[in-house]
Formats: sequence, C-alpha cells, structure tokens
Amino acid sequence: MRLIDGKAIAAEIKREIAEEVTQIKAAGNKTPHLAAVLVGHDGGSETYVANKVRSCEEVGFHSTLIRYEEDVTEQELLACVERLNNDPDIDGFIVQLPLPKHIREERITEAIDYRKDVDGFHPINVGRMSLGLPGFLSATPAGIVELLKRYDIETRGKHCVVLGRSNIVGKPVAMLMMQKGYPGDCTVTVCHSRTKDIKKICLQADILIAALGVPHFVKGDMVKEGAVVIDVGTTRVPSDKTKSGFKLTGDVAFDEVAPKCSWITPVPGGVGPMTIVSLMRNTLLAGKKEIYS
Amino acid sequence: MRLIDGKAIAAEIKREIAEEVTQIKAAGNKTPHLAAVLVGHDGGSETYVANKVRSCEEVGFHSTLIRYEEDVTEQELLACVERLNNDPDIDGFIVQLPLPKHIREERITEAIDYRKDVDGFHPINVGRMSLGLPGFLSATPAGIVELLKRYDIETRGKHCVVLGRSNIVGKPVAMLMMQKGYPGDCTVTVCHSRTKDIKKICLQADILIAALGVPHFVKGDMVKEGAVVIDVGTTRVPSDKTKSGFKLTGDVAFDEVAPKCSWITPVPGGVGPMTIVSLMRNTLLAGKKEIYS
Repeated sequence: MRLIDGKAIAAEIKREIAEEVTQIKAAGNKTPHLAAVLVGHDGGSETYVANKVRSCEEVGFHSTLIRYEEDVTEQELLACVERLNNDPDIDGFIVQLPLPKHIREERITEAIDYRKDVDGFHPINVGRMSLGLPGFLSATPAGIVELLKRYDIETRGKHCVVLGRSNIVGKPVAMLMMQKGYPGDCTVTVCHSRTKDIKKICLQADILIAALGVPHFVKGDMVKEGAVVIDVGTTRVPSDKTKSGFKLTGDVAFDEVAPKCSWITPVPGGVGPMTIVSLMRNTLLAGKKEIYS
Repeated sequence: MRLIDGKAIAAEIKREIAEEVTQIKAAGNKTPHLAAVLVGHDGGSETYVANKVRSCEEVGFHSTLIRYEEDVTEQELLACVERLNNDPDIDGFIVQLPLPKHIREERITEAIDYRKDVDGFHPINVGRMSLGLPGFLSATPAGIVELLKRYDIETRGKHCVVLGRSNIVGKPVAMLMMQKGYPGDCTVTVCHSRTKDIKKICLQADILIAALGVPHFVKGDMVKEGAVVIDVGTTRVPSDKTKSGFKLTGDVAFDEVAPKCSWITPVPGGVGPMTIVSLMRNTLLAGKKEIYS
C-alpha cells in the first residue's frame, strides 16, 4: 500500500504556480487577482475563505475579500456579482457557498460571468466539462484527477466506481473519469443512496472514489485487493482528542481498507489540500486568459 | 417480452402537442415557430430535416427551412445564427449536424442563444441537465426517458448500463438516469470502447441502453433475464431486400435478446420516432417561454 500524499502534491503545485506568477510579473504582465465573497459568519465558510485568501498570497496573486452580513439581499449580492463581472482587474471570483436560505444559490452562480467562474459551478463550465471541452473544472474533481496524474496511476480501461452523485463531486468526477484520454477512459459506475447491493459494486472497483459524506462507510470487505481508493469525505466528527473538538473523518475506514489498496488517500492530507490549488490554478488560467479570451 | 412501441408513443405525443397548439392559437397567442438550418446536400441530413419540418406542420407549428450550399463560410453561418437569435418570431432553431469540415461545429453550437437551443446542444443546456435544473434536453436522451415514463417502467434503484459515451446520447442519458426522482435514481454504469469485460457488466443491467452504433453488438448471452433493453443504434446496413438499398440496424441482436427481456425497443420504431417529438416538445416549451423567460 502506498499513500497518495495530497499535501505534498498541493505544495508542489503551489510552488509551480508561484514560479509562474513570478515570471508573469517579471514580464511586466498583470498579477492574477482572485476575489472571494463571503456572506455571514459560518465557521466552516470562514475557514475555507481564509485559506483561499492565504493561498492566494502565498503564490503571489492579488486577492480581495468582500464580506456581507447574513441579512444581505439577493439583489445586493447580484449587484456585487455584476460589479466583479465588470471589474477588469478581477480575473476570477467565487461566492462562498452555502448562502443564507433567502438567497437562491443558483441565481447567484448563474449570474457570475462564466469566464471568471473559477469555482467551475456555472452551467456553461459544467456543460463544457461534460462535452470534453476546455473550461474551469470545479475544485474537488479537478484535484482528484490531478492526484491520479501526478502519481501516474493508470485509469484507461479501469472500472471506476463513484459513491455519491452530488453536483460538486460525484457527477463531475464521474464525467471526468469517463472522458476520452488520460486520466480518463474508465468504465464508470455511479452509486448513491438508492443503489442496491453497493458492496458488490464496490468490489468490482479498480478505482473507488468515495464522496458520500458518510464517515467510514467503505469497509475492508468492500474493496478489492489492489484497488486505488480516493476518499473525498471530510465529515467533522466530535472528538475529545483534538483542540478544535472535532476530527475530520473520511468516508473510508482507513485502517481496514488501506492494507488491501495499491494506493489510497488519507483524510486529512489527501484530496482536501488539492481543492484550494485547483482554485489557484483556475485563477492563473483566468489571469492568462488561457481558456476564454 | 413486451415491445416498447416508440412509433405509437410518438404519435400520441404529437396529438397532445397538436392539441396544445390549437388551444394556444384559439387563445390568440403566438404560434410556436421552429427554424432549421441545413448546409449542403447530405442524404441523411436532408431526410432528418425534411422529417422535422413535416412534423412541425403536422402539429401546427410554423417552420422555416434555411439552406446553404456546402461552401458557406463559418462567418456567414454565424451571421445566420445571429439573425435567428434576434428574430422575435423564431422560438427555437436548430443547425443540422454534421457541418462541413471547414466549419467549427462547437463555435456554431455555442453561438446559438441557449434560450432558443431546442436541440439542447449548448453547454448551458448540457450543464443545467447535469445539475438537475430545467433546460432543453437533447432529443434522443429525452426520448428514451419519455418512453420509460409512458410505459411506467420502474427505474428507482435499478442498475442502468449505458453502452457508449457520445455527447449526444451516452453521456446525457447516463446523467438523466442517475438524477434524483423518477425516471432516474438508477445506479448507472457507462461502458465504451475501452471497457474490459463488457459482457459481465451488461449481464448486471436491469436497464440496458445500447448507443454504440455497432450493429448487433448486444447478443443474447449478454442480457439478464427480465432486463429492459433500449436500442439506440440506427446503422444503415446495405440490404437488397429494401427499396432504399439499406436497412436500419440496431445495436441489439433483437431475435436473440428479445425473448429474455421484460421490455425492448425495436429498430426501427423504437427510440427513433421519439427524437423528433422531443424536438417538437422543446419548441413548444420555447414558444411558451416555460423554461427561460
């Protein structure tokens, strides 16, 4: 069993991006600029956005954080999106989800100019990915695919089983794994809460991607000898052993599963660290106008 | 074994649409208007477009056929798309594919206003379908799902195996079958040319959707007893028994497979007739501004 070290790969990619930013600046070109919009004071969202802003600074991007209180109206938020769409200095921006219930998330997502949609949530970017066209890939699926690539893990002709059909992980990663070429060319099965006999299907997986959000769902007897296991779960489970009072827990019962795997991602330190670098990379692509001119 | 009669269902839906058009006109509202753009003189395309125009007339739509010779430039075609985008009398339009090689199909497809994209090929409509949002569904996947619905065939918790990963059938029908709700909630596996042991996977299918374009690929020993088989193949195989000199041939070896099925679509007369009514339905929705206002 070998560990897929997302933390190390993420650090490596950050160095690559930082180097490219240095070159961009040296050539007298515009510094990539990411804006993040944060509504309210949800603990998780605060942490995620703070990490994103810090990572921007680490690689030499400009970053802007725009904050609204919980009671911001949909119209105010749409006006903010419009300003960011029209601001030539902003290359890409994100509106941190979830939003308060009185705001329709899909209206906000669709109002973002798809050419600045570095979260890859706009239907145009989702559609282009499905069609195999270049676009902004959303962070978690892009991070998973990048890990497979960096470790040179064979995907062609493999059976990839995806647990979960969410819009931000399950469906897009399934789409990526079935595309023509590498990393892709997998036979792909998508399982979810309505799936019968999920164990039997998991046992067929050469590559198992668990994104259900159910702690330790995947047990040792559900995994084939030699499988590659990617654990996307990051449920906060209460713990008296940590300072924060919780422990990030994956969808995979690591201790049972790991001995059977050829490769496996730990939680934390696997897929998690990759999501931010995927966002950084999209911002770099946006700054260079490499996908959309 | 029972036959899924696409021809009868298509006729039924056409009657429903015609009735609704009569009511729309009676209420003094605008008659839905579909335009079709045809480039060159490819035999298949001529037939498809002629059928679409005739079906429009049958249900009481207005229709407009715009023809270009093979040597039309991309710029001329884009200008035509722009005119149709801006023509308030045109509710929806299609540009018949394939286009001559000197024209980039994706540039044309993406130039079409997604609110008039009744073929459902624009990335926004593809993305919205993937996200589970309302949009124009492309004709063949929509037709397949409609057949399952009209015959009240259970899909929830079933294992649906899709053969083929094309942008117009395999990928979108896989996406539809895994969405929440009915018809959907399937465990979905997508197989293709790179799949190993395709027979073993087909044998797991409760619902098998064959869209490879390989005549008689699915044999009797690849199908489970009681399966539902949907045959999307329509390859023209030379034949001396027909006036046209060819015979439309499905991906399924019907004679061997049918006895094992609970339900099966014939070729011709199965999925084929449904594709045009899906286009008609999108045009009706476009005319009523039911999806996009």
